[in-house]
Amino acid sequence: MKYFDKVALRMKEVNSCLCIGIDPDPVKCGQIMNFSIPKLIDFLKTFVDKTAPYAAVYKPNLAFFEVLGPHGMEVFETLCKYIPKEIPVLADAKRGDIGNTAGFYAKTFFEYYDVDAITVNPYLGADTLESFYKYPEKGVYVLALTSNPGSADFQKPSLFMDVAKKMVQVNELGNIALVVGATHQEGKEIRDQVNLPFLIPGVGAQKGDLVFLKDEILSKNDLDLVNVSRGIMFPGELDNWNWNAVCEAAEKYNLLLKREV
Amino acid sequence: MKYFDKVALRMKEVNSCLCIGIDPDPVKCGQIMNFSIPKLIDFLKTFVDKTAPYAAVYKPNLAFFEVLGPHGMEVFETLCKYIPKEIPVLADAKRGDIGNTAGFYAKTFFEYYDVDAITVNPYLGADTLESFYKYPEKGVYVLALTSNPGSADFQKPSLFMDVAKKMVQVNELGNIALVVGATHQEGKEIRDQVNLPFLIPGVGAQKGDLVFLKDEILSKNDLDLVNVSRGIMFPGELDNWNWNAVCEAAEKYNLLLKREV
Repeated sequence: MKYFDKVALRMKEVNSCLCIGIDPDPVKCGQIMNFSIPKLIDFLKTFVDKTAPYAAVYKPNLAFFEVLGPHGMEVFETLCKYIPKEIPVLADAKRGDIGNTAGFYAKTFFEYYDVDAITVNPYLGADTLESFYKYPEKGVYVLALTSNPGSADFQKPSLFMDVAKKMVQVNELGNIALVVGATHQEGKEIRDQVNLPFLIPGVGAQKGDLVFLKDEILSKNDLDLVNVSRGIMFPGELDNWNWNAVCEAAEKYNLLLKREV
Repeated sequence: MKYFDKVALRMKEVNSCLCIGIDPDPVKCGQIMNFSIPKLIDFLKTFVDKTAPYAAVYKPNLAFFEVLGPHGMEVFETLCKYIPKEIPVLADAKRGDIGNTAGFYAKTFFEYYDVDAITVNPYLGADTLESFYKYPEKGVYVLALTSNPGSADFQKPSLFMDVAKKMVQVNELGNIALVVGATHQEGKEIRDQVNLPFLIPGVGAQKGDLVFLKDEILSKNDLDLVNVSRGIMFPGELDNWNWNAVCEAAEKYNLLLKREV
C-alpha cells in the first residue's frame, strides 16, 4: 500500500491527525525508571500499547536511540517491529548526503528497519533526495521551515519556498511531504502556494496556535499531521509521571486534533 | 588536546593533508570478499593498518555502517577504537536537528563513540549547531558548498556565504570548519572571504583540479584537508582489487596532497 493511503486509512480509524513522537530522552527516562536497555524496551512497548488507539502515525526520533550506541539501534529495531502494522512509522532521522551515500541511508530505513517514511534534509539539493522518494510505497518528509528560534538564520523565504516548490516538481510518485512549523504566517504562505501534505512539529497546547492551525492550515490538506512528543510521553512534572497521565494526554491531543474528514 | 592541534600535529607527521574516507560500501565489499560482519571488521582493521602511514585524518561515513543495522554500528564502534589515537577520526554523519535533539546527536558521536570531529548540516540554523561546537576539544565541519550535480538547487551564493560567515561569528572556541567542494570558482570565493579550515571532498586524480586546489585554496589555510574515499579503498577495477593497490593509492594521494608546512 502507498504511504499516504496508509496514513489516510489510519487517520480515519483514529479520527485525528495526531502524530505521536517517540523521543525517549534517556535523562528523562532515568527520572521515571531504573534505566537499562531491557527496561527501555518494556517502557516503549507499554507506551505503544497505551497510546496506539490515539495515534495516526508514530514518529520516533533517531537521536534518542543512537545516543545509546549499537544497543540503542536494537531498541529502535524492536520498537519498529512492535508497532502494529496499521500504524505508519515515520523515522525522524533528518538524513541527507550525496548520491550513492544517500542511497545507503534510504536502504537503512526503508529496507533494514522497514519504516514507512523518513524525514530528510534538503540542503544538499533535490538530486540527493531522489534515493529516498524513488521508493514508491514509502513517504519522504522534506524539512522546509522549522520552528526553532534560529530557523531564520538560513531559512529565508526564498530558500524554503524554493525547497517547497522544487518538491512539488519532483513529486511524481505522490509520496513527498514537507516539515513545516505551521503555526505562524510563513507556514500559511507555504500552504497557500504548495499543496503537499505537512508534518507540523512543535504545537503546544496554546489555543491561539490551534485555532490558526485549524483554520489556515489543516482545513486545506487532509493528509497534514501534527506532532506531539514530550507532551504525551512526559506530560506534566516528571515526579508525578504515570501511565494514566500519558493516556490522558494522548486522548486530549487526539481530540484537539480531530479531523472532520 | 584541541581538535585542530591534533590535526596539525598529524599533518606534520604524514607531511600531507590527505583525509582518507572509510566508506565500506557493502555492495563493493561483497565483490572482494565473502561478506559478513566479522570479515568486514577484519577488512577495516587491515585497511587501517595498511593506510595509517599516509592518513592525516580518517573519515568514516555513517551511511555505510548504519545500513547494516545495529551490528553495523558495532563495526563502527570497533573501527573508532582501532584507529591509532594520534590519527583524528572525523565522523561523516551530516547530522542536524533542533536544540535538545541535536544535543543527543552530539553526545552520540562525541561521548559514546568519542570521535574527534563530525560533519553537520546547517539548514536548521546556527543555534542548532551549538550543541556540537560547544565541545571545546572536538571539531565541527559544517556543510557549506557541496560538489554534487544538484548542489545549486538550494546552495545559492547567498546561502553558502551566509552559512560560512555565520560560522566565523560563532567560532569562539576555534573548532569550526567548512565542507567546501573547492575545486571550482565558488570554493575560491568562500576561501577569499572566510578563513576557516576546509574539508574538501570529491577530488579526482585530474591534474587541473589539483593545480587550482593547490594554488587557490590549500596555499591559504594550513588546516585544509582533502578527502579521498573510493580512490583509496577501491582503486581500479574490483576484479583486480588487492592490498598492494590500496597501499599504492594511499601513498599516491598522500604525495599529491603533500604540504609544505
